[in-house]
Amino acid sequence: MNPRVAAIEPSLIRTIAAKKKPGAIDLGLGEPTILPQQRFIDAAARWAAQHGVKYTVNAGDAALRERIAAHYAYPGMSEARNVCVTTGSQEAVYVAIKTLCDPARDELLVVDPSFPAYAKMAQLEGIAYRRVHMRAEEDFRYDVDAILDAIDRATRVLVIASPANPTGRVLHDADARRLAEGLLARRGPPVWVLQDEIYRELTYVDDPGSVARYYPHTVVANSLSKSNALTGMRIGWLLAPDGAIDSLIKTHAWVTSTASAFGQRVAYEIFGEPGAISEQSAWYRTQHARVTVALDASGLRYVPVDGAFYACVKLPNGTDSLAAALELVENRGVVAIPGRIFGDSLEGWLRISWVAPIADVEEGLRRIAAI
Amino acid sequence: MNPRVAAIEPSLIRTIAAKKKPGAIDLGLGEPTILPQQRFIDAAARWAAQHGVKYTVNAGDAALRERIAAHYAYPGMSEARNVCVTTGSQEAVYVAIKTLCDPARDELLVVDPSFPAYAKMAQLEGIAYRRVHMRAEEDFRYDVDAILDAIDRATRVLVIASPANPTGRVLHDADARRLAEGLLARRGPPVWVLQDEIYRELTYVDDPGSVARYYPHTVVANSLSKSNALTGMRIGWLLAPDGAIDSLIKTHAWVTSTASAFGQRVAYEIFGEPGAISEQSAWYRTQHARVTVALDASGLRYVPVDGAFYACVKLPNGTDSLAAALELVENRGVVAIPGRIFGDSLEGWLRISWVAPIADVEEGLRRIAAI
Repeated sequence: MNPRVAAIEPSLIRTIAAKKKPGAIDLGLGEPTILPQQRFIDAAARWAAQHGVKYTVNAGDAALRERIAAHYAYPGMSEARNVCVTTGSQEAVYVAIKTLCDPARDELLVVDPSFPAYAKMAQLEGIAYRRVHMRAEEDFRYDVDAILDAIDRATRVLVIASPANPTGRVLHDADARRLAEGLLARRGPPVWVLQDEIYRELTYVDDPGSVARYYPHTVVANSLSKSNALTGMRIGWLLAPDGAIDSLIKTHAWVTSTASAFGQRVAYEIFGEPGAISEQSAWYRTQHARVTVALDASGLRYVPVDGAFYACVKLPNGTDSLAAALELVENRGVVAIPGRIFGDSLEGWLRISWVAPIADVEEGLRRIAAI
Repeated sequence: MNPRVAAIEPSLIRTIAAKKKPGAIDLGLGEPTILPQQRFIDAAARWAAQHGVKYTVNAGDAALRERIAAHYAYPGMSEARNVCVTTGSQEAVYVAIKTLCDPARDELLVVDPSFPAYAKMAQLEGIAYRRVHMRAEEDFRYDVDAILDAIDRATRVLVIASPANPTGRVLHDADARRLAEGLLARRGPPVWVLQDEIYRELTYVDDPGSVARYYPHTVVANSLSKSNALTGMRIGWLLAPDGAIDSLIKTHAWVTSTASAFGQRVAYEIFGEPGAISEQSAWYRTQHARVTVALDASGLRYVPVDGAFYACVKLPNGTDSLAAALELVENRGVVAIPGRIFGDSLEGWLRISWVAPIADVEEGLRRIAAI
């Protein structure tokens, strides 16, 4: 068998989740708890009754690709041909990492704390990866200078998620611009930026930034999972400039052939209704305001939540986040994710998600504060 | 970028398809033309209205996995834990090849003529592959001795599709048993058989065989695409014994995370209704009888159609299948696929699919016979 598969460790998130007891407060969830907009699913079912559910071309339905490209309108990737529809943003990120890096010589640089998938995918592909740590003392804000300093000759792809999972930090517009300027000023072949913007619709700051606006060597990954409570629909996409998109589509074609045509039709309906992609954001803004009050009341140190639906809280006693998470799930009836799985810089912290009812979030925070 | 991606040549099927003119007879299609069973899609839409469309666990919904495992009931893989639900059989095959082979030393052996995806995936993963050719003189019937002789020390995975795309040949039960016996008699570490049975419900012989029934080191790939006219739903699965399934699920988890939960619900409904998986087979049997008459009337040499919805016809003049396919699409109003893309042994042949209306199939065959 493939030794790289064998070397990948089982997911700690699942180890924790498997210990969840009945009645426990679940602050481990990585997906919305509200329901999706059923009208789009029903419209797709009616469409299927008329047209069946056939293959689309590998890159996705042309009309959907046009709507996605036009909606984001990023410079150099605003045409239908710049879109590849994928099986969620997971496949989007996988295809991007696999395509953009030569395993024989290239390195992936991940801005930490980060979602573990980037490093796991690099491991699966035999691609070297390195982490540049944002600092706890600065509440894990994006430090553009540290990121630029960390890039070296082998770095081929820089992965940056904004809003970030787990920290909820957002790359501000001025920082996105400065990062782009720094990258453009480098000599040698350009470094690709893989901009993971799956939480794009969920921001609580005035000036969220996008490297894709300023830097032509950007590949964007996104999906309907979080914005439209459609995690299980598995519709994501890559946006990429002309020099990269054809290679990305080629890899995608051999990995999964096409994304679900049914899911693509749901997406086509969503992108056809102005505001539908951000309709559910209001729920998150209201919840965010309540959660901020609860975090303040908890007495716990926490990272300011600029976006997404997570909060990182510092353990009041000790630094072993796995031991704390196990104590919480086994004896205190709370599921929370140990910070260490997002990189060493988040050891000593827990990631909580706050899509549960607010009373549960409040009680969960009280129990965390009491350990 | 990844040089292995760059090295993969663009698809000749798509080159041909792109030249199709309005009004042309399309015998190039690789998917059913009948509509899917809408009742299952509607049931899934109702379920979504109640439950949303959330992530399932990576391997797929437990209740669906149980139904799939019980339906096929292959020895050693008849429990829910032996199933990994995937984004169509394309991802199933991709995950199997990627997981079972160590690119540093293992070789994939493909029984030719074959669907080009196996070789392309091996190329993408940097895995060595070799082809064992079934012989035109024997109408490309599965030659078990030739297959066993072709296996050498490096061979780790043997890919065999039955019914086969493009030849439509089926591995008969006695041959499946003999292949299993031959493999079991070998010394050294066992060779995995990857049994692609995506056309399993479409057979026109009495004794279709299955290596999985006789050989414990078999991994099975299948999907709803052809049996239920759901190519665009992207629901496939792997069945594998305990020693392999966990590794397959791990690879799947990092490539796409999960298959569509909506599609999984459609599958759950289908597997919950006895006979639903083979309900559409009757249409193919009727069409098969008509097509056999048309093939006989055409005067063309053709490969007996044991299964699937293709027929391979010998070019009446010359051997250049690409030139013939281009002539047909550019000047004769017929889309047909050049044999050479399925391996050297099918050069001089065309693959036609016969899911178009029978009058179109008849006229298409006349035009092919006339070139």
